[in-house]
Amino acid sequence: MAHVDSLQEFLESAIVAAEKTGDVIKEAFYETKHVEYKGQVDLVTETDKHCEEIIFKYLKQIYPTHKFIGEETTAAQGASELTDEPTWIVDPVDGTTNFVHGFPFVCVSIGLTIQKVPTVGVVYNPIMNELFTAISGKGAFLNRKPIKVSSQSELISSLIVSECGSNRNKSIVDAYTKRVNSLLPKVRSIRACGSLALNLCGVACGRLDICFQLGFGGSWDVAAGAVIVREAGGVMYDPSGAEFDLTALRVAASNPSLKDKLVEALRQVE
Amino acid sequence: MAHVDSLQEFLESAIVAAEKTGDVIKEAFYETKHVEYKGQVDLVTETDKHCEEIIFKYLKQIYPTHKFIGEETTAAQGASELTDEPTWIVDPVDGTTNFVHGFPFVCVSIGLTIQKVPTVGVVYNPIMNELFTAISGKGAFLNRKPIKVSSQSELISSLIVSECGSNRNKSIVDAYTKRVNSLLPKVRSIRACGSLALNLCGVACGRLDICFQLGFGGSWDVAAGAVIVREAGGVMYDPSGAEFDLTALRVAASNPSLKDKLVEALRQVE
Repeated sequence: MAHVDSLQEFLESAIVAAEKTGDVIKEAFYETKHVEYKGQVDLVTETDKHCEEIIFKYLKQIYPTHKFIGEETTAAQGASELTDEPTWIVDPVDGTTNFVHGFPFVCVSIGLTIQKVPTVGVVYNPIMNELFTAISGKGAFLNRKPIKVSSQSELISSLIVSECGSNRNKSIVDAYTKRVNSLLPKVRSIRACGSLALNLCGVACGRLDICFQLGFGGSWDVAAGAVIVREAGGVMYDPSGAEFDLTALRVAASNPSLKDKLVEALRQVE
Repeated sequence: MAHVDSLQEFLESAIVAAEKTGDVIKEAFYETKHVEYKGQVDLVTETDKHCEEIIFKYLKQIYPTHKFIGEETTAAQGASELTDEPTWIVDPVDGTTNFVHGFPFVCVSIGLTIQKVPTVGVVYNPIMNELFTAISGKGAFLNRKPIKVSSQSELISSLIVSECGSNRNKSIVDAYTKRVNSLLPKVRSIRACGSLALNLCGVACGRLDICFQLGFGGSWDVAAGAVIVREAGGVMYDPSGAEFDLTALRVAASNPSLKDKLVEALRQVE
């Protein structure tokens, strides 16, 4: 494990990279977008690719020995295996659909894993000017002020967020709406705002009580959020109740007292 | 119909009332809320009631002959009939659940009907500092800059927003998730952010392509948004394709070219 001093330096570098990217996102936010299609509804814009280049170039120059995993590089060149090496896991624009439409839930997400554990996290929404940051063992922050998860302990009073994601296979869509249908009478309400990284940060700062999602793009959607949730006093877990796996594309996050209640409610859907 | 000069004055009065209220909402936003329950998940806070008093007191003093309909007054004293008289229709805090949880999609909504037609509208989100305004025949504005609906003409490229609302009867929840299930493969994605007035404004400024909702609290959720959508070039209609009825608790909003496509897609759900 790197020293805390290095971790602090890594965080500051990630913040600089996120802010550089945020400026580009903000500038492009109100322009007409040139959109490509990865799948039917999975969009990628020039901005996504340009922003990933900015982040990689900046961080690689400071940390030439570190590994890098990015959403756009993976889409273009295939997946690279996560190793024990310090690895920057980057989503240059999370909430690309929102970005294309001008809906303000958009962010850049930069996480650093060391020995496969999310250790430094930065999630920055440049439109709403919200910067979420965390280092393992050093707390979580929104615009450099400490944040913590909600103290909600009852499912019926909990505000949930859960997205369908971009896969439109009938079995995926059916499973999603079945979960929403089963949960709605058991919770306060369910939101779907289109950015998993921001959903996790919403849990970290207590605006949302629970975030869960089965199926999403890649580890870049959750690597930064995982550190931020944990450092805010929350827990990351698989929606089945199993341990959180960064590469499994299944995630749940909440305060510790809601975990078993969510897992049980989701088990009842099956 | 009142003169345009009076309408401009009505709008400016509504903005003052909304901003006074916005200050109270903003101050209370980060505090622990004292919550009452109207139904199982329909919350009302001290702030809702206090804010309605502020708005009514301010507007009644300037316009003593006007009529007033407010969410909280209606809850306490029963419904008052909408007449042809100039009538202020007010939701002091739309998105009360979001407000209670600290989720930033919260607004005050102030609409004025004349001869039952929404004629002046103000929707103000004090947390995100967004002020949507419109006067019939004079255009729609966000922070005093003109806005217009999206030019999207295909359902498959459209970003939709639709809420379940606060009713948790099985038939209502089933109908909601059935619509989401049927629409998801036919649209880009579906958002649910918890404020119908802000959803309508999202359509008005082109961030969202379509908003629809079957079942909500009252005319106060849509009276201001209706003017703002129409003045932004959008259309308000019943999800069945019938004419929009301010009191029917059913609403759809989009640009004109998406209307028939949405109505047809919703018809296929039945």
